[in-house]
This record gives sequence, C-alpha cells and structure tokens, in this order.
Amino acid sequence: MPDITLNDGMKALEAAFAKARSLNIVVGVSVVDARGDLVASARMDDSLWWWTESSRAKAMATVTYGGIPSGELTERAARPVAQTLLHMHQGRIAPQQGAVPIRKGGKLVGAIGTAGGTGQEDEDISAVGASAII
Amino acid sequence: MPDITLNDGMKALEAAFAKARSLNIVVGVSVVDARGDLVASARMDDSLWWWTESSRAKAMATVTYGGIPSGELTERAARPVAQTLLHMHQGRIAPQQGAVPIRKGGKLVGAIGTAGGTGQEDEDISAVGASAII
Amino acid sequence: MPDITLNDGMKALEAAFAKARSLNIVVGVSVVDARGDLVASARMDDSLWWWTESSRAKAMATVTYGGIPSGELTERAARPVAQTLLHMHQGRIAPQQGAVPIRKGGKLVGAIGTAGGTGQEDEDISAVGASAII
Amino acid sequence: MPDITLNDGMKALEAAFAKARSLNIVVGVSVVDARGDLVASARMDDSLWWWTESSRAKAMATVTYGGIPSGELTERAARPVAQTLLHMHQGRIAPQQGAVPIRKGGKLVGAIGTAGGTGQEDEDISAVGASAII
Repeated sequence: MPDITLNDGMKALEAAFAKARSLNIVVGVSVVDARGDLVASARMDDSLWWWTESSRAKAMATVTYGGIPSGELTERAARPVAQTLLHMHQGRIAPQQGAVPIRKGGKLVGAIGTAGGTGQEDEDISAVGASAII
Repeated sequence: MPDITLNDGMKALEAAFAKARSLNIVVGVSVVDARGDLVASARMDDSLWWWTESSRAKAMATVTYGGIPSGELTERAARPVAQTLLHMHQGRIAPQQGAVPIRKGGKLVGAIGTAGGTGQEDEDISAVGASAII
Repeated sequence: MPDITLNDGMKALEAAFAKARSLNIVVGVSVVDARGDLVASARMDDSLWWWTESSRAKAMATVTYGGIPSGELTERAARPVAQTLLHMHQGRIAPQQGAVPIRKGGKLVGAIGTAGGTGQEDEDISAVGASAII
Repeated sequence: MPDITLNDGMKALEAAFAKARSLNIVVGVSVVDARGDLVASARMDDSLWWWTESSRAKAMATVTYGGIPSGELTERAARPVAQTLLHMHQGRIAPQQGAVPIRKGGKLVGAIGTAGGTGQEDEDISAVGASAII
C-alpha cells in the first residue's frame, strides 16, 4: 500500500513549518498525491492569501511531470504542451522552484510544495517536509 | 487580533477528523478565512479525491454570505447573483450542507466545511471542528 | 496490479461497438481510469462529433461518485457540490444515464460510458463493454 | 467519401502503439478528424495520465492550421491569434512536435498526435500511425 496518507501529509506540513520557523520566514505548504489531488495544505500566520494555492501548484507541476522537482521544470513552462496543462488545471500548475517529489519504496506517491520564501528556501523547506515521511 | 491562525486551522482539522472517526466515516475538511482563502485543508485515507475541494467550497459559501451555515444557503444557489459568484470562483463555492462559520469574540473570522458524509454528518463534524477553536 | 490497462480499454471498446452494431445504432464510447483520466475513446462512423466527449463525461461522473452508474446520479446534477465538480472539470462530467463502473477483484478501476443511443441503450452498451474486461 | 473512419482510427492507434513498443517507449496517441474532434484515443500502460490529452492537443494544432505537422507550428504559439485559439479550445491545442496530418486522395481528413517520447519519437510514431490508414 505505498500511497500517501493523511498522517504523511500532516507530518510533512509540521516538519516544513518547523523548518520555515527556523529560517524565520512565513510560508504556505501543500502536499498532493501522485495524481496531483490535494492531501493536505496550510499556511502560516501572516502568509499572503494565495500561498496555499501556489505551493499546491508547484507540487502539482512536480507530479504532472512524473516526479521532477518543480525548479527543474521552469524552462518547460513556455512550451505549448505546458500551456495545455495550465488550462486543463485552470492555471493550478506552476513549474517554478519550491516543490519536490515524495517517494515510498522508490514509487512516486506525491509531491510537496512551498511558497513564501525564495525559490531555494521553498525547495529546502519542501525537502524537509518530504523527508519527514517514511 | 481576532483572526484565524494556522494553529486554529490545525486544531479544527484534528477535532473534525476525530469526530469523523467516531462516526466511522471518511471525510475531507477545509478551513478558510473570512475572505474565503484557504487556511488549512486535508482529507482522510480512502477519501474521494475531491473532498478537499468540496469541503472548501462549502466553507467558501458560508463566508461569502457573511457567516451563514452552508446548509441554509442551498435555495439561493439558483439565483443569478449566486451564479455570478459561482463563475467568479470557477465553481469553487457550494451552498450545500456541511459548513459552519467560525467566530472569535462574535466576529466572523472564517468557516469550516466537511465533505464525505451525509449533509448532517458533515455539518456536525464541522461544528466540532469549529468548537475546537478558541 | 488491479489497474485498468490499454488492453482492457481496447477490448471494452470493441465489445461495446459490436453491441451497438447489433442494436443498429451509432455511438461514441469512452473508458476512464478510477481518477477519471482517459484510457481509451472512439466513435463510430456517422456519430455526432461530441459523442466521444459525452461518453467520457458520463464515465467521469461514475468514477467521481465512487462507482455509481451515471444514470443513478442525475438527481444530484443540480446540487451545488455537483456544480463545483462541473466547473472543476470544465464541464466534462455528466451525471446522466449511459456509464457503468469497471471493477477488478471488487476494486473500482474505472468506468465506461456510451453516448448516441437512448439512455438505456447507452447503459446496456457500456455494460457489455465492461463485461469484456476481466 | 474521403472521411476518416473508426476503422482508420483504430488501425492508426494499433500501428502507433506497435511502433512505440519497438522503440521501447510508452505513449498516448490520438486521432482527430479535419475539424479537430476526437475519432480515437488511447494511452499505453504506465503513461502519464495526460498523454491522451496532449497527443490530442498536438493533433488538434495540425488540423487547426490546415494540415501542418505540429512541430512546424511552435513558433506561431505566441502569436495573438494562436492565443485566441488556445482560449477558444480551453488550452486543448498544442503546436508542439508530435502530430502529422492524415490525408486521403490528397484531402486533409484529420491528424494523429503522440505524446510521451521525445518530440521526434512522437512525430515518428504518428507518421507510422498515419501510414497505416488507406
């Protein structure tokens, strides 16, 4: 049963928020399953209102491309097929740095994305969240 | 500072999921702020994929109408202005039973919505979640 | 590995089209996976252009509601949450008779939908297609 | 009667999937008619979920421009009229390499698109599928 669970999602959020606090920044974090559907999402106090959305959209990009960190997908964003995906998801896919894949036993089970810091901070926070799973 | 916090959102989710488990049902739960933007959302294992979406849409309906439980809004759904709101939010507003307002010191600070049970079960779970705040 | 395969999809289409020919009608047929994503779809000569779309939308409705034949979902179509789903899927969900679930070992793995005949004919054709799998 | 038929579509899919297997890759393939409406579409096991969508969007681009292989259309994607078409079709048109026209007796009757390989692999597979017709 290598699927992502509610418990996984909540643990990942907690670890990610702890990391953000240690960096003294405020973020939104989202965990999606391998199809891109939301498992868990939340944003810290004083976040901008859309950081749950953008953290989720980064995570969506990662699973859409089969598990590639969203920061490695940015050049693809301008391609016509990427535009197809953007419309299919009503804009809710963002190939921009901040999300990393979540794997269990080597299998892609989802992704976690962060928004609110620099791209690198966001990705680091997501990586901490992902490593809290398993 | 009567605003909804990340801590509020997480406590509400936990209480709501505990209530769902006591009813032996599986649900998605979402907490939004007074503007309708997502504070926290998650779904239990074996949920349908869209229960985070529909729980959120119910909560959105409640704050959109100034704090009315979503179950009291269903008859308005067919009105032209409700259709305007439906399109403005790309369908992500559902005036259907399952969400209740969250207030602090009498002030509306957000709403919590649940999806997965009957309308009454969803509303009961949301009420438990809301009462965990403050 | 109880997932739906390309071979399943093609066998289901063939069986469905054979049934349609025996009824002397022309249809479009679509097979989706458990998340509602397209596995296989085609339409017979002289179909209306959108019968691949509507057969798919019926199948999507069936899996969206966890495996209920689309003909049993029609009364839900007017509910606010159904409107949320309609918008989330850009209109590509149709809770109208013609689709049935596909299960393997009791597990929902997808659905098959048909468009072009009466609702009952469509459902009968889909049932023949589904029974060609496994 | 130089129109594309169900039989054409199914033969093209079979030939395209056989070619993909010979290249040891996994793809989705779609055949559309001269209007861009779907005739037949399917994806191989282990495809990403959206490869039916993107293969179709490439085929749509080819017929939309009167029969030009989608790989020759990429530079047009940024033009205002192309953006108009993109919105008209809710993003479901992708002027990116992978689709070729289908002609009968010199007349454009449709297009076939492939997604999942490199652009060149996708186009090669589509060409094999197209040559299986007639």
